[in-house]
Amino acid sequence: MTASTLDDYLGQHRRRVEAALAAALPGPAPDDLGGCPERLASAMRYSLLGGGKRLRPVLCLMAAEACGASWPEAMPAALALELVHTYSLIHDDLPAMDDDDLRRGRPTCHKAFDEATAILAGDGLLTLAFELIVRGIEPAASAAECVRILAEASGPSGMVGGQMADLEAETRAGDGEDGSAAELEAIHRRKTGALLRAPLEMGAVIARAPDAWRDALARYGKAVGLAFQIVDDLLDVEGDEAKLGKRVGKDSGHGKWTYPRFLGVEGSRAKARQLAQEAVAALVPLEARGGRLRELALALLEREC
Amino acid sequence: MTASTLDDYLGQHRRRVEAALAAALPGPAPDDLGGCPERLASAMRYSLLGGGKRLRPVLCLMAAEACGASWPEAMPAALALELVHTYSLIHDDLPAMDDDDLRRGRPTCHKAFDEATAILAGDGLLTLAFELIVRGIEPAASAAECVRILAEASGPSGMVGGQMADLEAETRAGDGEDGSAAELEAIHRRKTGALLRAPLEMGAVIARAPDAWRDALARYGKAVGLAFQIVDDLLDVEGDEAKLGKRVGKDSGHGKWTYPRFLGVEGSRAKARQLAQEAVAALVPLEARGGRLRELALALLEREC
Repeated sequence: MTASTLDDYLGQHRRRVEAALAAALPGPAPDDLGGCPERLASAMRYSLLGGGKRLRPVLCLMAAEACGASWPEAMPAALALELVHTYSLIHDDLPAMDDDDLRRGRPTCHKAFDEATAILAGDGLLTLAFELIVRGIEPAASAAECVRILAEASGPSGMVGGQMADLEAETRAGDGEDGSAAELEAIHRRKTGALLRAPLEMGAVIARAPDAWRDALARYGKAVGLAFQIVDDLLDVEGDEAKLGKRVGKDSGHGKWTYPRFLGVEGSRAKARQLAQEAVAALVPLEARGGRLRELALALLEREC
Repeated sequence: MTASTLDDYLGQHRRRVEAALAAALPGPAPDDLGGCPERLASAMRYSLLGGGKRLRPVLCLMAAEACGASWPEAMPAALALELVHTYSLIHDDLPAMDDDDLRRGRPTCHKAFDEATAILAGDGLLTLAFELIVRGIEPAASAAECVRILAEASGPSGMVGGQMADLEAETRAGDGEDGSAAELEAIHRRKTGALLRAPLEMGAVIARAPDAWRDALARYGKAVGLAFQIVDDLLDVEGDEAKLGKRVGKDSGHGKWTYPRFLGVEGSRAKARQLAQEAVAALVPLEARGGRLRELALALLEREC
């Protein structure tokens, strides 16, 4: 392995993603020439370049590298993942959904622009994601497979379905229904888990990795995705508002279903640790190639934001 | 050519599309098993199976057939086009956008369900469209090219950009600005034109047609798409409310920019005729293969709904 620390390694990939994201968006074009209207381009840019951990694209670059590809080969897929993640945040923040005014410490897209623009910015980012994949990933068979993975992870049986199930659970929680850790997991598996697992599989596809590696990375992604969500819930209970850039304790209000609620704080920590260990165990078939991903799974437990 | 009339031919393709659409949607799944939540599946089904001319999918099947493919080969791409068209109607009808209560004679999706469900149903249909293409179109190179055509036609520089430009034009029209037929055309080229041209190109790609045929079909699609929009504007001035299933004259209220406003009723009719003739002329390289598409371009001028 290289001598750099995990933080250096992640920071380097993150900066590569930031630079590529800025270049991937359509520039504002004068309306009479066709192209992307200026207001729409500004809204997409505002939300996409407003910070964030870039976890999904970095996971994709890491998986591709672990399987022997170079990170630039995977960049179009990595960007597509961040576009889909960003669109989901824009739509989830809308008044009709979670009605949030603040995201990453700044006004949400519909606050900075307006609701119609925010809906269209989300639609545009989602559509552009698929275009980036087929324009940038080769051969076509790998591009088509990445489109399939991304669409399945983010579609009606994945992320979009998870957001629907989450809204329904909120209504049930508001009505005083108890719920269970199993029901919560079923929501998160779709709402956040699917799009955290997809980058690992896409990286493997782009590197044309053997099935055993792809399966290993999918299992790793599934465990890490759920661990990430549990830590998210723990941070919401314990976190520091300034670091998170959103109101702390919001999720535990109104009887909302969270891991700490069902398992307690200590039980949730134990579950996250267990999942990180499962993720590490899943990487065995990759041998030394899985080193950075192994480090990342353990580091997620120490997350502060 | 076959002896059946154009109406019989179109009706047959339309019924094939209807049957395939019903089968393409995810069934409602009990939430605890994962899969698509029942409410989301119902909303997608409500909007997708609520009628409509199915013009985009039928154009795709016709283009594929004209270039020598069989219609079943093109069906996944045809369905994807209708999913994207339906998602755009759901989002455009939202209160923050055009705020319509009625669509095809029935309550719009957000009226029949609620706003959050309508936003997610649109997101789900758009995502599923790309999944259908990569699952159903072969070889992968054709699937990837169809994804590119569909994403470009419906993305920020296509349909989504056109809706943004249209909303901005409405504000300007409301402020008493005059606008011009050229500005209106720039909006429609993106808002409706791009997704009417895409089926023709996708059909050619699926049939692996020579470039000359693909170019011919793209030119045909561009002309027919604009002619269709002009006839739409004319129907809004003159049409019969019961046939259209929406309030007539709505678009000409509030000084909205329409073709009859800029060119007059007779001038608009002449422009539509001229575009239909351009479409017919574009088909010359396809020789007799273009027969049905030729008939369709001329029939669009006689549309009543």
